[in-house]
Amino acid sequence: MRLRCPICGRTYDEPVQRCECGEPVEFEPFKGEPYIGKTVWERFWDFWPVKPALELSLGEGDTPLVKSKLGDEFGVKLYLKNETVNPTWSFKDRGTFLAMSHALKVGYRAVGTVSTGNMAASVSAYASRFGLEAKILVSESASDEKLRAVSVYGGEVIRVYGDYGRLYFESLKLGERLGVYFINSDNPFRIEGYKGIAFEIAEDLTSDYVLVPTSSGGLFRGVAKGFIELYESGLIESLPKLVAVQAEGCSPICGAFKEKKTKVERFENPETIAKAIANPYPPSGNAVLKLLREFDWKCVTVSDEEIRKAQGELAREGLFVQPASATGVAALRKLNLPEGARVVSILTGSGLRTLKTAPAGKIRECRLEELENCLG
Amino acid sequence: MRLRCPICGRTYDEPVQRCECGEPVEFEPFKGEPYIGKTVWERFWDFWPVKPALELSLGEGDTPLVKSKLGDEFGVKLYLKNETVNPTWSFKDRGTFLAMSHALKVGYRAVGTVSTGNMAASVSAYASRFGLEAKILVSESASDEKLRAVSVYGGEVIRVYGDYGRLYFESLKLGERLGVYFINSDNPFRIEGYKGIAFEIAEDLTSDYVLVPTSSGGLFRGVAKGFIELYESGLIESLPKLVAVQAEGCSPICGAFKEKKTKVERFENPETIAKAIANPYPPSGNAVLKLLREFDWKCVTVSDEEIRKAQGELAREGLFVQPASATGVAALRKLNLPEGARVVSILTGSGLRTLKTAPAGKIRECRLEELENCLG
Repeated sequence: MRLRCPICGRTYDEPVQRCECGEPVEFEPFKGEPYIGKTVWERFWDFWPVKPALELSLGEGDTPLVKSKLGDEFGVKLYLKNETVNPTWSFKDRGTFLAMSHALKVGYRAVGTVSTGNMAASVSAYASRFGLEAKILVSESASDEKLRAVSVYGGEVIRVYGDYGRLYFESLKLGERLGVYFINSDNPFRIEGYKGIAFEIAEDLTSDYVLVPTSSGGLFRGVAKGFIELYESGLIESLPKLVAVQAEGCSPICGAFKEKKTKVERFENPETIAKAIANPYPPSGNAVLKLLREFDWKCVTVSDEEIRKAQGELAREGLFVQPASATGVAALRKLNLPEGARVVSILTGSGLRTLKTAPAGKIRECRLEELENCLG
Repeated sequence: MRLRCPICGRTYDEPVQRCECGEPVEFEPFKGEPYIGKTVWERFWDFWPVKPALELSLGEGDTPLVKSKLGDEFGVKLYLKNETVNPTWSFKDRGTFLAMSHALKVGYRAVGTVSTGNMAASVSAYASRFGLEAKILVSESASDEKLRAVSVYGGEVIRVYGDYGRLYFESLKLGERLGVYFINSDNPFRIEGYKGIAFEIAEDLTSDYVLVPTSSGGLFRGVAKGFIELYESGLIESLPKLVAVQAEGCSPICGAFKEKKTKVERFENPETIAKAIANPYPPSGNAVLKLLREFDWKCVTVSDEEIRKAQGELAREGLFVQPASATGVAALRKLNLPEGARVVSILTGSGLRTLKTAPAGKIRECRLEELENCLG
């Protein structure tokens, strides 16, 4: 299996993480056929770059596709891919599991990541599960309380003071030297794991549009690669249109796309409630930009107010998500999609992780003796 | 379909919630055969008392069974049934969905529940999903912060001042009068929904023991009924032994069992970190007691210290659960099970809901310039 740089085209036979040109590398496309199996790993066995360590699986993937009424207003059929029911309650687990399978096979004793939220928890959990040490690097602004849901898994949590963007690249460099395998947001194995989202969607329905909350670009690239491989394997008849959704307050990819630039520039002074997609200088930004151009896909931004509204609407459908996960539904209002289009929005992570910012309802008070009045 | 009181034997043709004698009623046993289907609702279609409203499903059930190393020390093969990946992150969703299907079919416009934790969130979420009003009655001690994860779904949250145990019975009585269908902890439809846990376990392996965290007794009764129906339908060759696990600090059922009483008595001054199973006067206590006696099953108590330890061990397997969900694993130490026994422990709810009490690890501090030292 070879890795290839989607930007400059260089290829690599060893498992590097990034190209000499600075861009992320990716595995050359897989082709295959589906099998019968209980897990997405088994059913799409031909499509993974490493044998999934099934005996260590926590049951990641195979998440429900839920029918939603929220598309009615816009004349589309909306389905929600609920990634909040993964083992650490975000889509990250799919990529973490596959990258961890690689790390174990190659013989690493320690793994790491740079993250403050979903990915930190995911890597910490799977490292313990796989019997590997974990070095979880978090930014100086991460609160102790938030980190409780990370450190509980047993990984070593290290709060790093300094430029968070630089930390991404430093960790890869130092990790290589010190034998710590860093599974950051666009690690090539991680990207492969996200393909399962596309595979499962395709098993359930023929989608016209897929809305993807986009930060580093890792999820977007993984979902895109999944659909492309299905198409090139003759398993689907056409590609859905992918929509990268970003928060207005941190939209470096949509900005570059709109201004027809070939390189994503650092977004100055990012500010949004959708913290999980607030990467101002996305390491896979240029790769996403290239996909958007090549396939004539879309990039859409949504305001914090629109995100909050969509978060509330989703909760009233029974699904409590993080602000970042509500951006897809928020984008519906902006997209003006064709009547009857089948649209899938990916719900990336659980609202329980960002409880403090959740849109809370009022609480009434009542004495037991007056319960009849209170209920009436 | 008839309801029957498991204690006095009276039968009812209308869907009452409790028997005249005060005990909970349950549906007479179902017999059937399994079908091919993606969801547990479809595969065990013969076994539900109401047609599941599949078009409104949020994907509850069909949770992973995860292999664990934590049985090795005790010479048993341990499997963890991970109910924390349900739509509102606890097993409650299975029962809520089925009871809600009934409420919708019968024409109720409002539903309710008495709970402060998992069940409150679950009923609030599904009520919104089903387009029904929700009256969520919580105890006076429930904190505003905890209730944020309940009110977000849009149900009406009412804090009731007064005896919490009495509230359970008052809600049923008033609900009937006011047309609010209360789906409390041992509602007969709710119990039926929990059977899916037994069905899925049986699909995956032949279990010798199933460890069930036990509070009101609803979950225990549902899992027991599921296995019994499989057995009576000829789908499994023998019944596993069920183990009711309670916290030492609130163990009314184990207490009555040990003292060979036929009635559970109120547990005075309950005190445990396992809040989700701290019901001092369990409404299904006598029914559980009868099952334990009839089948020669077990009841075991575990201390807060043992629970905390098991919670940490589970997190190091990659599964972050509530203290109540760790009681099964904590009980392994007490049980002295036969060598090689296949044991399933049910993980009832996500640790994110009880984050404040989670066993947190230390957080190191590091300057970016010194990262190499920090990683080494």
